[in-house]
Amino acid sequence: MNYRLVINVLGLALILEAAFMILPAICAVCFAETEVWAFVICSLICLAAGLLLKCIAPKHRRLYAKEGLAAVSLSWIFMSIFGAFPFVISGAIPNFIDAFFETVSGFTTTGATILTDVEVLPKSIAFWRSFTHWIGGMGVLVFLVSLLRLSGGNNLYLLKAESTGPSVGKLVPKVQSTAKILYAIYTFLTVLQTVLLLAGGMSFFEAITTAMGTAGTGGFGIKNDSLAGYSSYIQNVVTVFMLIFGVDFSVYYLLLLRKFSAAVRSEELRWYLGIVVVSTVLICLNITDMFDNAFQAFKHSAFQVASIITTTGFATTDFDLWPQFSKTILVVLMFVGACAGSTGGGMKVSRILIAFKTIVKELKITAHPKSTHKITMNGRIVEHETIRSINVYMIAYFAIFGLSLLVVSLDNFNFTSNFTAVAATINNIGPGLDAVGPVQNFSQYSMLSKLVFTFNMLVGRLEVFPMLILFSPYTWKK
Amino acid sequence: MNYRLVINVLGLALILEAAFMILPAICAVCFAETEVWAFVICSLICLAAGLLLKCIAPKHRRLYAKEGLAAVSLSWIFMSIFGAFPFVISGAIPNFIDAFFETVSGFTTTGATILTDVEVLPKSIAFWRSFTHWIGGMGVLVFLVSLLRLSGGNNLYLLKAESTGPSVGKLVPKVQSTAKILYAIYTFLTVLQTVLLLAGGMSFFEAITTAMGTAGTGGFGIKNDSLAGYSSYIQNVVTVFMLIFGVDFSVYYLLLLRKFSAAVRSEELRWYLGIVVVSTVLICLNITDMFDNAFQAFKHSAFQVASIITTTGFATTDFDLWPQFSKTILVVLMFVGACAGSTGGGMKVSRILIAFKTIVKELKITAHPKSTHKITMNGRIVEHETIRSINVYMIAYFAIFGLSLLVVSLDNFNFTSNFTAVAATINNIGPGLDAVGPVQNFSQYSMLSKLVFTFNMLVGRLEVFPMLILFSPYTWKK
Repeated sequence: MNYRLVINVLGLALILEAAFMILPAICAVCFAETEVWAFVICSLICLAAGLLLKCIAPKHRRLYAKEGLAAVSLSWIFMSIFGAFPFVISGAIPNFIDAFFETVSGFTTTGATILTDVEVLPKSIAFWRSFTHWIGGMGVLVFLVSLLRLSGGNNLYLLKAESTGPSVGKLVPKVQSTAKILYAIYTFLTVLQTVLLLAGGMSFFEAITTAMGTAGTGGFGIKNDSLAGYSSYIQNVVTVFMLIFGVDFSVYYLLLLRKFSAAVRSEELRWYLGIVVVSTVLICLNITDMFDNAFQAFKHSAFQVASIITTTGFATTDFDLWPQFSKTILVVLMFVGACAGSTGGGMKVSRILIAFKTIVKELKITAHPKSTHKITMNGRIVEHETIRSINVYMIAYFAIFGLSLLVVSLDNFNFTSNFTAVAATINNIGPGLDAVGPVQNFSQYSMLSKLVFTFNMLVGRLEVFPMLILFSPYTWKK
Repeated sequence: MNYRLVINVLGLALILEAAFMILPAICAVCFAETEVWAFVICSLICLAAGLLLKCIAPKHRRLYAKEGLAAVSLSWIFMSIFGAFPFVISGAIPNFIDAFFETVSGFTTTGATILTDVEVLPKSIAFWRSFTHWIGGMGVLVFLVSLLRLSGGNNLYLLKAESTGPSVGKLVPKVQSTAKILYAIYTFLTVLQTVLLLAGGMSFFEAITTAMGTAGTGGFGIKNDSLAGYSSYIQNVVTVFMLIFGVDFSVYYLLLLRKFSAAVRSEELRWYLGIVVVSTVLICLNITDMFDNAFQAFKHSAFQVASIITTTGFATTDFDLWPQFSKTILVVLMFVGACAGSTGGGMKVSRILIAFKTIVKELKITAHPKSTHKITMNGRIVEHETIRSINVYMIAYFAIFGLSLLVVSLDNFNFTSNFTAVAATINNIGPGLDAVGPVQNFSQYSMLSKLVFTFNMLVGRLEVFPMLILFSPYTWKK
């Protein structure tokens, strides 16, 4: 293990975070809030820590898989620790574990909160919450890679560890250029949504925070009722953009290159949209009686389906009051998640698609034992490595799920609350059902449970393996 | 597909069932019940259908994997249909879907019931319910194979499809002898338990039905409060025998051969016992306050852990009233299940153990990419085929779980009830929590849900793949 290189990357990540904190500081100045000092102090602490760690010069800059994975997971943990300081110092969230939970929830784009009233938060603090969504959505180290060429190092491992989906490819031969393209598309779409929200009558502050929360598929709201109080126009814009940010970004790159047929050929995209349409229609039929007319039911149904499958977690209504069939569809969608290569969480449609194809392959082989069958995706053969990584992912995912459920059950909340709380954090959604429903929050759980949820959020965002590697003795043994 | 051979096997299975029905008929005679006619008529119907199907002579007797799997799953479905007739004809369960549910629950050793009062059942009907557990526990076709040598046919596929666990081996070179040995051990242990229960003051009828329910890890009770009303001695005997029937039968064969060290070397056995001990202690600590003394708490804790991990489903107390931590341990144990090669259900300890080992292997490979690692079990390398089959099993298992949950949620019971009802049926346990808790039953669910549960029970008992093969177009295409 090249410890020094890992520490070096960690230092760079913290320096970057120090820079990020300047934005909420500016926000505080604009709104004449005293929190400006909290951000300035935290930014300086971050910078100092970052520079200190960066001083440790690596002997060589070769970065292999384990260094890449460890660097990413450690960066996320440390950035969350330092990112929690503004909440504590400003007094917005005095308890450090709570603040840490909130920051991890931000960076991992979960959107689960321990706050009972978000409307009393200073604007700059609310901005920081939403901004962590935006940074975490595409990835901190992807940002770093887009800025720097870690000379000699293989940045692809950093990109791979932080990007979503079973097999992460480069859009262009150079990793740095790939990262730049990803962030350019991401920024463009965020700005576009902000403009459309402004057109709907939102203030600039509301529009930018909502857009950042959507872009990262995060879900932190600036209102206690999430998006319930806004107009249908605003809600529909958010619905569409949640779905947009749940799509593989390489599809947008193909569109930019005018390779329309290749973009549309994506099997994952078709299944993703298919699942969205079917779920929306089923829920709409199931909840029609609860609303004035079918259009209202359809609007809420579409919003909630988009919010859950993309793992954003915004709400326009208390879906915990919906019939069990609708709620169960949403619970199943929590696990499905968005597309690989998007900012969304969950298992990802492509993982589930490939997993299904392994069953079909097995059925074919059983019927015709002598023939050979390969699993394909978008017309290309899926490598054995990818299938193996999906299997390992799923096993580890369910194992962590079960263990988390056990620990959390010590708090004696009911099964539905515990199950959906674990599902909502490990899939980076935010709200669950019952005690963690859309009009509830995570504040009632014990500190131990909050730490478990925090771990789950990181496991979900980094897709299990980078977090597991931290706890593996093989990683640290000589 | 060798249709004629599959139909031939089906015929043999029904003839065997006709013979099985003679036992409850004798029971009816002993208790002077009029139900004797129901069993005589049903036995004759079964015999007629069996002989009719057996008439269709196969052109050749080569039995490949797909024929073996299809023959097993179809036999189970048809035996359950014919096995439901006594319930309907006798009027004990007038509705056919309900009777079918009850029979599948019996054969698959689930023990879930739609009956609200089992104490009013005629003795012969109660005997038939418990007897289906005993037949289903070790397997109908294993019994058939022990009696007949399907000339030219490869009986191993039948044994494989019906036995539990990821890789089914033969105890001795001959399949027929293996089946004989398995049934001999099974019968001996059942008789031993019956004797011990008789020694505890149970009537012969109570002892034999309870022993059959334990042997098959079934769980149908003859009392409405399951085993709550019996003495601690009886309860403890059942606890021990539930655990015994949850162990791989090849361990007992090794003991018979006096290969003690080989028997004790079984990794699965150690983990199984380890999980039982840890779970019992944790639950005991968690529920101590609810009982008069620690011994009482320990007794109930051990009984419930044994009942759930072996997927039997007997109860000595309403564990739905226990704290959430204890209940969650039981829910997790529902998925773990017993050992491969036992009569228990669930995923099986060995599957989970091998699955964990794939994670450890991946962590090792990531740390040392150039070294090679093989997954071993009991000191022997686990074949790639086995690992692949475990992965396919798990994917299909969770997919069926999710879909079942969706359909069942249409009945609008709460999430806990639906989730544990699906878990209790697909893992062949019986009781779940809330609306399907140990003092409740499945009668409240709709006919559609009951059919879904019935499907789940078959999926669980036959370990997914034999049931999937029925729905695969590749199986039936020329």
